[in-house]
Amino acid sequence: MPNRREITQETLLPKGVKDFLPLKAVKIDYLNRTLAGVFQRWGFRPVYPPSLENLDVLENGLGAGLRERAFRFDDRQGGKLVAFPPDITPQIARIFATRMKEMPLPLRFRYSGRVLRHAEQQAGKDREIFQAGVELLGLESAEADAEMITMAIESLQAIGAGEFTIDIGQVEFFNGIMAGLDLPATSLAQLGEAIVRKDNSELKTLLERLPVSDRSKEELQVLPRLFGGREILDKAAKAVTNPRSQAALDNLAKVLDVLDMNDIADHLTLDLAEIRGLDYHTGITFQGFLPGLGRAVCSGGRYDNLTARYGRQAPATGFTFNLLNLLFALDRTLEELVDTRVDLLLFQAGADKKPAQKIARALRQKGYSAARDMLPRDLEASLAYARKMNFTYLMIINEENQPLRLIRVADRQERTLSPAEILAGDFILNPAGDE
Amino acid sequence: MPNRREITQETLLPKGVKDFLPLKAVKIDYLNRTLAGVFQRWGFRPVYPPSLENLDVLENGLGAGLRERAFRFDDRQGGKLVAFPPDITPQIARIFATRMKEMPLPLRFRYSGRVLRHAEQQAGKDREIFQAGVELLGLESAEADAEMITMAIESLQAIGAGEFTIDIGQVEFFNGIMAGLDLPATSLAQLGEAIVRKDNSELKTLLERLPVSDRSKEELQVLPRLFGGREILDKAAKAVTNPRSQAALDNLAKVLDVLDMNDIADHLTLDLAEIRGLDYHTGITFQGFLPGLGRAVCSGGRYDNLTARYGRQAPATGFTFNLLNLLFALDRTLEELVDTRVDLLLFQAGADKKPAQKIARALRQKGYSAARDMLPRDLEASLAYARKMNFTYLMIINEENQPLRLIRVADRQERTLSPAEILAGDFILNPAGDE
Repeated sequence: MPNRREITQETLLPKGVKDFLPLKAVKIDYLNRTLAGVFQRWGFRPVYPPSLENLDVLENGLGAGLRERAFRFDDRQGGKLVAFPPDITPQIARIFATRMKEMPLPLRFRYSGRVLRHAEQQAGKDREIFQAGVELLGLESAEADAEMITMAIESLQAIGAGEFTIDIGQVEFFNGIMAGLDLPATSLAQLGEAIVRKDNSELKTLLERLPVSDRSKEELQVLPRLFGGREILDKAAKAVTNPRSQAALDNLAKVLDVLDMNDIADHLTLDLAEIRGLDYHTGITFQGFLPGLGRAVCSGGRYDNLTARYGRQAPATGFTFNLLNLLFALDRTLEELVDTRVDLLLFQAGADKKPAQKIARALRQKGYSAARDMLPRDLEASLAYARKMNFTYLMIINEENQPLRLIRVADRQERTLSPAEILAGDFILNPAGDE
Repeated sequence: MPNRREITQETLLPKGVKDFLPLKAVKIDYLNRTLAGVFQRWGFRPVYPPSLENLDVLENGLGAGLRERAFRFDDRQGGKLVAFPPDITPQIARIFATRMKEMPLPLRFRYSGRVLRHAEQQAGKDREIFQAGVELLGLESAEADAEMITMAIESLQAIGAGEFTIDIGQVEFFNGIMAGLDLPATSLAQLGEAIVRKDNSELKTLLERLPVSDRSKEELQVLPRLFGGREILDKAAKAVTNPRSQAALDNLAKVLDVLDMNDIADHLTLDLAEIRGLDYHTGITFQGFLPGLGRAVCSGGRYDNLTARYGRQAPATGFTFNLLNLLFALDRTLEELVDTRVDLLLFQAGADKKPAQKIARALRQKGYSAARDMLPRDLEASLAYARKMNFTYLMIINEENQPLRLIRVADRQERTLSPAEILAGDFILNPAGDE
């Protein structure tokens, strides 16, 4: 045994990772199960990429932002640099490009997993991120983009979110403007920053200083104001002249046409200054927001060039949920939706444990959750345990064939059940009103 | 974008990790879901320990075997050595000891996660291991050990395993014999090795060479033969005189008494030379085996000293399934049990996609899985896609309010449905016999 070091809460875990105890963990399970259900009903099939990738392979699919944030180290068994994926989409792009060559298109995949990313520690940000998402590979149509957004909305509704907003962007609108500028990379980055922050005075200062045509100045200055409902498409069309930005607006209009059909326009906001997608995005992007949380609960978009980095060109789109952000923003809602109780604690009076074992088995076969109280303690102590541990009922089992007492833990209301009925599976534990 | 390196199947992934594509992944999902269901019905609550631990903290709970096999590296953000857990049980022991001090005992936890372990690469062994397991903390009774074994058996039955064996050991039987020897650690290790391999001639050679009393020689030589049904308990009781081994036999007998009540004795084999448990085991241990696979599909046992290494002494027991071993051993069975199909592919004839979107939504609300075919292609091409991608039906949607054609992909048998019925949710897709 190693030396036992001093353990304090402070030094216990690395920064940015957490333990999820039962009250949170059941909610994570609920989110995963519900989202997987939605994804499955849309025809998406599961894949599990590994927790470890060769860094050189993985990096093909990571933009500069995530490449810096990957956990990497020497694999002593392979002599190569390996990494824990900071993003699952490039893994699925790799799988698609290298292992699915004989499959017809399109392909629909879903996944649920955890990624690790270095993060600003001052902000106390999570470094372990629980994700659940989908990828739709092989379709370039606006309908495919609309499928992603519709699924995100259906997913949010399925997990109990009432109010939410989906912010939709189109990175090509911004790219079209930027392509017309003849500026060094640092200046382009400064402009991008100011636009993302919607910092108009900074943007103005930059534009006064930089050699930018009047035409481009106008396009850039209008960008932070291109935020709102469908009406901004006209405003945007008037503001830009370059064909790349115009094509982006046409594409956005087509996606909105499909979405309108689905009666979900209420939840949508357009934001042409939203250019914070991952580096691989090439078209429509979107992020979902819930009230009270500034961080997105889901994000995604089109990435038509990513799979080519692994050797197979294909249009693609996808999105992912951040489960911990959902957990935080929906905590109250989930409290009501998710049942954290166990149905029964079984207390066997007397030395012979056989009757309790039989009854427990019958209850479980019927689908109830039932734990045995195996500690030698009295009924009051057992009841106190049941209350503290969130059991709905305490069942007291006497000698074989003797009646069973069923005590509702919340108010000690009691009734009697016949063991024969339970063993025969011929009973309902909680008749209407009792629960 | 980085230089695109040459990518071949050979260099694609680190050794010992795999991609799981849909046909395997749905089986992993099935195993996880079914096992979580069993664990939940026994009253176990989920926990999610993190994917990253401080090495010094984690190592408190790892035996020498696993300590060597942990993936470790410098955390550039914390300046400390961190590790990816090679075992989830020590994480739960840590959580129990440091974060659950106010909770009454016993506590029942379940988990599902992936661990990473360095492994012999010649053997092509997995380094990423998918686990699903439980821990029962705070009970020292034989009933608690029996609960673990009974749950393992119920779990195997629930996932469709017909034939299986649970090998039960008791490490204290062996420890009692070894404690009576006055030998250096290397000699003790050699003896242990020979016993694990049931290598009687090696054992004999060692015992001739080493300074061991005749009494201990007899005890050691009988060990590899203490394998079989309950009758070996008598044989074992006659072979040993030390009280520690005798107490182990008493404990084993008590556990078997509880198990006999559960009518599962058929599946049990006793093996007192089975001492391959993890270093932290202190009593009953067990491993589950399926026909055709030498590696255990589940393993577990009592570990009464592990939580103390994190500052809180408590008796405990638990076990875990190795999902990839289950996947391998049960592949055929799972093929029959797990549905890998998607119910419907929806083909919209004509330019207006609205009718197909409405029908798809109604089908999904009814619980069917339905994907839209969005590529511009003809009916034959769509049918070929549906066949290749394992859809059960192709549904052809015409203009709004026109009848729908439902084609069973396997044999092209066709019938007609009314869109109004589907939109009203008033239909059964597969009446008896049609599937």
